Amino acid sequence: MSERLSVTYRVRSDAAGIEARATGIAVEQSVEMPLEAIDAPAVLSDIVGVVEGIETAGEGVFSVRIGLALATVGADAGQLMNMLFGNTSLQDDTILADVDIPPALAAAFGGPRQGLAALRERLGVPNRAFTGSALKPQGLPVERLALLAERFALGGLDFIKDDHGLADQRYSPAMERIPACAEAVARAARSTGHPTRYIPSLSGDLDAMRAQMRVARDAGLDCAMLAPMIAGFSTLATLAREFPDFVLFAHPALGGAARIAPDLLLGKLFRLFGAGGVIFPSYGGRFGYSTETCQRLAANARRTDDGLNAALPIPAGGMTLARAGEILDFYGPDTMLLIGGNLLMAREHIVEEAARFARAVATHRHGRA
Amino acid sequence: MSERLSVTYRVRSDAAGIEARATGIAVEQSVEMPLEAIDAPAVLSDIVGVVEGIETAGEGVFSVRIGLALATVGADAGQLMNMLFGNTSLQDDTILADVDIPPALAAAFGGPRQGLAALRERLGVPNRAFTGSALKPQGLPVERLALLAERFALGGLDFIKDDHGLADQRYSPAMERIPACAEAVARAARSTGHPTRYIPSLSGDLDAMRAQMRVARDAGLDCAMLAPMIAGFSTLATLAREFPDFVLFAHPALGGAARIAPDLLLGKLFRLFGAGGVIFPSYGGRFGYSTETCQRLAANARRTDDGLNAALPIPAGGMTLARAGEILDFYGPDTMLLIGGNLLMAREHIVEEAARFARAVATHRHGRA
Repeated sequence: MSERLSVTYRVRSDAAGIEARATGIAVEQSVEMPLEAIDAPAVLSDIVGVVEGIETAGEGVFSVRIGLALATVGADAGQLMNMLFGNTSLQDDTILADVDIPPALAAAFGGPRQGLAALRERLGVPNRAFTGSALKPQGLPVERLALLAERFALGGLDFIKDDHGLADQRYSPAMERIPACAEAVARAARSTGHPTRYIPSLSGDLDAMRAQMRVARDAGLDCAMLAPMIAGFSTLATLAREFPDFVLFAHPALGGAARIAPDLLLGKLFRLFGAGGVIFPSYGGRFGYSTETCQRLAANARRTDDGLNAALPIPAGGMTLARAGEILDFYGPDTMLLIGGNLLMAREHIVEEAARFARAVATHRHGRA
Repeated sequence: MSERLSVTYRVRSDAAGIEARATGIAVEQSVEMPLEAIDAPAVLSDIVGVVEGIETAGEGVFSVRIGLALATVGADAGQLMNMLFGNTSLQDDTILADVDIPPALAAAFGGPRQGLAALRERLGVPNRAFTGSALKPQGLPVERLALLAERFALGGLDFIKDDHGLADQRYSPAMERIPACAEAVARAARSTGHPTRYIPSLSGDLDAMRAQMRVARDAGLDCAMLAPMIAGFSTLATLAREFPDFVLFAHPALGGAARIAPDLLLGKLFRLFGAGGVIFPSYGGRFGYSTETCQRLAANARRTDDGLNAALPIPAGGMTLARAGEILDFYGPDTMLLIGGNLLMAREHIVEEAARFARAVATHRHGRA
């Protein structure tokens, strides 16, 4: 018997059709051909997907568990995604809901080389939640972005990340923006005594991202951000392997394949591939995630029971300072509050508003965690 | 005024709320922050997205056209996807429907360096539709796959592609599979006199794909396939630039972000980034695309009015020899018929079945094209 990966799909079907549909998924996500045409016994026994269980999951929906052979995945992140949902993603009736990552696979990918624990140590923040904001709007020249970064840092925030829209545009080329913002934040950190981190956003192909990482490292940085759905899953895994001293933050952009459960995609898989911080749209903001989804997503990001490092869940997307208390009670202290646009509304009072934000988190008494 | 990209979204909304929602998308996909907090006039005029039009598109659905500044994109494929749909993909009410690619952007990406015309010339097939099949099932050793490739080629097919599940697994490592199948197909081609092409499937990160492309080129190949949703958009664009003599075939795996219109994602964008052949799930197969979607997708792939090469549309996913006539009438001759599993049902009569397939396409009189 081959070692298998247990994958859960949610399938819309009537009771009469669900067994055939489950078998169809098992075949589609493994050999993708009629079984009658396979004359290799080892392929039939070891490679073809196996229906492990079918349960009802509400009206007209079934939870289908399928065992996929680990041998079909190897240790490539892109190929794991391909085997989990490649062709079935094109079929309207099915959602990729969950996957149990066996220890061998967890070890093969390695998860966050630097995650939650590294962030707590580097920032000197043993217990409380982290604070973060974002450099916006794109269109500003490098000096304006660096100035904004410095002012956020003077307010005592923990993290200042690039807006995910900042790529390598003419008005703020990555190779100029990264050292300039790094220097501005370092200057502020020397003045405040708090080791605020700047998180540059990576863009382009693997080579371009590598070059940006090297510039970041040369500028004294140890954090970076990328969007795995845009960059490619293997790109994240490769950067995690090649830059083991960096905390990699995963941005959810283009993650709106609503047919991959967000707690699986953002919380579980991005961490597996090496993200040490996972940014996601929180309930109650501009996006539609439920409190249950957010809770599960954060729990997936923080796990350590698989021997990999915990990642930092980062609720974002329309957060406000007024909501800080409620959000902190909901997520507990192992989190980063990322408040972007709302903080920028303070305009010339950015430093004071950032300081108010930093203080609110530092003095919060958790109602729930 | 900045040059802009006109992007169309389909938005579920009531009439009272659609203007505010459209403005919300324009802001989300550009500066992603409250406009009141922006004090740079050039950003407000040149960078912030502009609502260009709102039209009703059926009950409770609006078609919203938004102008995004070209300057925010630069010439990176990933960043184009990010600006088109990065964050808005996370909002349930909106589908990315279409985008008008301005000439400057088309020129920057370059589209298929080798597309439909190159395939017609290389295969010596001036008018008729192309034939193709796939090497399956994964789990077979290299020799078995090479043998199958040879038998398909002996039947006179135009293209034999790897199953998209074939990656770099232990049972058929890419670096052994690619030269072995290339050699087997070349041998068959010498015997039939027809220059059948083998299309290896690329996997891994950019470095791994480059190495596989080099092995392919050394083995005399000039075609390769990858799944842009898995590999990353910039990976496709980079390979298209670095291997201008290759036809790159785009596989739709993980393209089930049903919220990006398939005719846009597969037909228009994959071609823009350099795919010369675009594989997609045809109507009437295992997947749910309508005839209208397939027609639009194929038309997008074949265009040349933007100065880029036409790509070859490749309907697949449950095609059968019995349906060849109907499919050919529907798509016309500028297409490849890709019949995988159904052909493999012939088992020991693969050569004869492949020959029947090749003949059926060669002798077809188009009812419609």
